[in-house]
Amino acid sequence: MRVFIAGIDGYLGWPLAIYLRANGHEVAGADLLLRREWVAEVGSLSALPIATREERLRAFHETFGTELDFRLGDLTDYDFVKGFFADFQPEAVVHLGQMPSAPYSMIDQTHCVWTQQNNVINNLNLLWAIKEVAPAAHLVKLGTMGEYGTPNVDIPEGFFEVEFRGRKDRLPFPRQAGSWYHQSKVHDSHNTHFASKIWGIRATDIMQGVVFGTQIVEMGDDPRLHSRLDFDQCFGTAINRFCCQAVIGHPLTLFGLGKQKRGFLPLADSMACLRLAVENPPAPGEFRVFNQFENAYSISELAYIVRGVAADIGLEVEIRHYDNPRTEMEEHYYQPDRRRLLDLGYQPTRDIKSVIKRMMLDLLEHRDRIEAHANVLIPDIRWDGRRKRSEIIG
Amino acid sequence: MRVFIAGIDGYLGWPLAIYLRANGHEVAGADLLLRREWVAEVGSLSALPIATREERLRAFHETFGTELDFRLGDLTDYDFVKGFFADFQPEAVVHLGQMPSAPYSMIDQTHCVWTQQNNVINNLNLLWAIKEVAPAAHLVKLGTMGEYGTPNVDIPEGFFEVEFRGRKDRLPFPRQAGSWYHQSKVHDSHNTHFASKIWGIRATDIMQGVVFGTQIVEMGDDPRLHSRLDFDQCFGTAINRFCCQAVIGHPLTLFGLGKQKRGFLPLADSMACLRLAVENPPAPGEFRVFNQFENAYSISELAYIVRGVAADIGLEVEIRHYDNPRTEMEEHYYQPDRRRLLDLGYQPTRDIKSVIKRMMLDLLEHRDRIEAHANVLIPDIRWDGRRKRSEIIG
Repeated sequence: MRVFIAGIDGYLGWPLAIYLRANGHEVAGADLLLRREWVAEVGSLSALPIATREERLRAFHETFGTELDFRLGDLTDYDFVKGFFADFQPEAVVHLGQMPSAPYSMIDQTHCVWTQQNNVINNLNLLWAIKEVAPAAHLVKLGTMGEYGTPNVDIPEGFFEVEFRGRKDRLPFPRQAGSWYHQSKVHDSHNTHFASKIWGIRATDIMQGVVFGTQIVEMGDDPRLHSRLDFDQCFGTAINRFCCQAVIGHPLTLFGLGKQKRGFLPLADSMACLRLAVENPPAPGEFRVFNQFENAYSISELAYIVRGVAADIGLEVEIRHYDNPRTEMEEHYYQPDRRRLLDLGYQPTRDIKSVIKRMMLDLLEHRDRIEAHANVLIPDIRWDGRRKRSEIIG
Repeated sequence: MRVFIAGIDGYLGWPLAIYLRANGHEVAGADLLLRREWVAEVGSLSALPIATREERLRAFHETFGTELDFRLGDLTDYDFVKGFFADFQPEAVVHLGQMPSAPYSMIDQTHCVWTQQNNVINNLNLLWAIKEVAPAAHLVKLGTMGEYGTPNVDIPEGFFEVEFRGRKDRLPFPRQAGSWYHQSKVHDSHNTHFASKIWGIRATDIMQGVVFGTQIVEMGDDPRLHSRLDFDQCFGTAINRFCCQAVIGHPLTLFGLGKQKRGFLPLADSMACLRLAVENPPAPGEFRVFNQFENAYSISELAYIVRGVAADIGLEVEIRHYDNPRTEMEEHYYQPDRRRLLDLGYQPTRDIKSVIKRMMLDLLEHRDRIEAHANVLIPDIRWDGRRKRSEIIG
C-alpha cells in the first residue's frame, strides 16, 4: 500500500517509515525537521544521537534497496501538500506531523497560538488534499487519549449511546482536553469528523496513549535508523523521562500526588497499531475512533516499575514528588475502552519491564548527553502562566 | 461599565455600541472592516446603505456627546489587542469580531483555512489579553446554536448530566457543527472553557440563534447610526434574505424540504440579551453557556410568516424549494433549552410579525439596491465542494 507519513522525521514518524517498509509497504513522507529545533529551543537534545536527514536517507536506501521520498516541506503550505499527494497518490495518510507537547504550547501567547495554528491548519490541508487529489485515501490521524481529559465515567472509543430526558442518541463523547496542544487535537478531531461527513473521507482518529521506548526490531543495528528520545520538560514524556533520570541517578520526578492515570504503550505497540489501522481501512465516509494504548497506569506505579528495573541492573534511584506545574486532577476515575484494535488483532506487549530494561541499557551508553542537560528535567512551565521551577514537596 | 466590542463595525457590533452607550455604558471597540470586503467579494452589498467609519463616529459623537474609541485593527495581531486592552481596561469584552458565514467558509481550501485561522486566533488573543492585562474582565463570546448541530435529544445550555454504564458525570454537551465556520466556533468554545479553567477567566459563551431585523429604537432617525443588512447567499441569513426577496418579488428560497428547525431572534432581542450577559457577569473561573434565541422555527414556517406579512402590505410573493446546497438533516428533532437568559430577565419579543413588517418597510425604500444584485440570492456554494447554482425542485 502507498502510505504517506506526515512528520516522517519524528519520534514516531521515522520508526513508522522503517516499520511499514519492512512490512512491504511503499512509503513517502514530509517533514520540516521542526522537532529538532523545538528541543534545541527548550535547551535540550535527543538522549540518543540521531542521524541527519541525509544520513537517514542513505541508511534507508542501503537497508531496503529503495529510495525514500522524504521531502522537506511545511504541511501548512497547501500547495506543497497537494503537489506531493498528486505525485505520490497515497492510499493511506498517517498524520504525525504536529507539535506534540503540552508544556511547549503553554509557554506563552506565541507558543499557544503557534501550536493551534500549525496543528489545525496542517490537518485541514491534509483533509483538503485528500479530497482534491486522493479521495479514496484513508486518513489515519494521530490524536491523543488526552483529548478526553479525565471524566468520571468510562471513556468509550469516540462515541457513546446517551439517554437524556427520555430520548436516545449516539453522540460524540465530549472532549475536555488539558492544554493548548491537547485542545488543538480536539479541534482536529472535530474537523476530521466533519470532513468525513461531507466529503465521504475514510478516517481513523487514533486516541493514543503516551508512547515509550527506544527501539523496534526493524531498526536493526544501524544507528542511523534509530529514533530520537527526549527527556526535557516539554518533549520528554513520562516513562522516557524516568528512564533518562534513572540512568544519571536523578530522582524520578512525580508531579503532585502522582496518582494521575493515563494510557501508555511501547513504541513497538504504537507501530503495530498504526499498521493495523492502515491495513484495515474504514469504508468511505466512515469516521472511526480507536483508543490506542497497552494499558492504563498511574504515574507513580510507573515510577516504581522504572525504579525496580533500574535496581535489577544495579542503578539506585529515588522517587520524589514535585509541586505540580499543571492544572489537572491528581486523583480521578479512569476507565477507557480499548476494544477496536484488539478486534483487529492487536496483541499488547504484556511485559513492559523488558521494554524499560532495553531503554535503560540503550540510554546508559549516552548518559553523558543527559547529564550535560540535566537542568531540563525539572519543569518550570506552569499552567497558570507563571515560569517557576517546581519544588520537591515529598 | 467599560465594555470592549470586538467587531464593532458589524451587523451586531455597531447596534450594540449604540445600545450599550444609550444604556449608560462606556464603549470602545475594534474592527478591520472586513465584513464590508467579504460582502463585496461575493458580489453583493448591504441592502440598507451604511455610513463609513468616519461618519459613524461623527454621528455617535453628535448623538451621545462622547467620542467613541473605535480603532481600526486586526484582532489576530496580539500587540494591537493587548495594547488596546491596556489603554481601555475593559470590564467586559463582547467578542463579535469573527467571520460569521457558513457558506463563505465552505467556498474552498483558502476560505476554510482563513476562517478557522482568523476566528481561532483572534479568540485566543482576546483570552490572552484578558489574562495578561485585564484579568477581572468578563468575556462574552458570541457562539452559535449551530455548534450543537441537530442531535436527537434536547439541547441543554452547554452541559448535561450523563449516566453511562452506571456512573454519572456532568459533561460538556457534544458539538456537531455543520460547516467550517461553525467548527471554528466549536474550537473557540473549547478554548474559552479551558482558559476559564486554568486562569480563572469569567466567560459567557453565547449560543445564539439566527438574528433578523433592521432596527433598534436606540438608533433613532439618524441613518448614519443604522446597521447593515445582507441578503447574499453567504451573509444573508434566513429571515433577512426572505424579506429582501419579498420586497423585490423574488420567490422565497427554501433549501430542500425547508423543515430544518433553528432558533431565531430579532436584533433588539440580541441586544437585550447581550446586555443582560454583560451586566450580570459570572464569578471568576465560571464558564457559563447561554442558548440565546426568541423561539425555534422551521424555515418553511418562517417563509409563510414572511409571505403573510408581505401580503398585508400589498406584496405578493411565492415560496419555492431549491435543491439543498448544504449537507444537513432536513427533518429532525429540535428542542433546545432557553432558561438562563429568561432567569436574568430576558423578555422575548412575541410578535415577530411586527419586526418583519418594519424590516420590509425599511427595505422597500432600497429595493433598487437588492434588484441590482439579485443574482446573489440563489446559492451556488455546495457542501460537497462543487460550485453549482441550486435549482428549483418544488
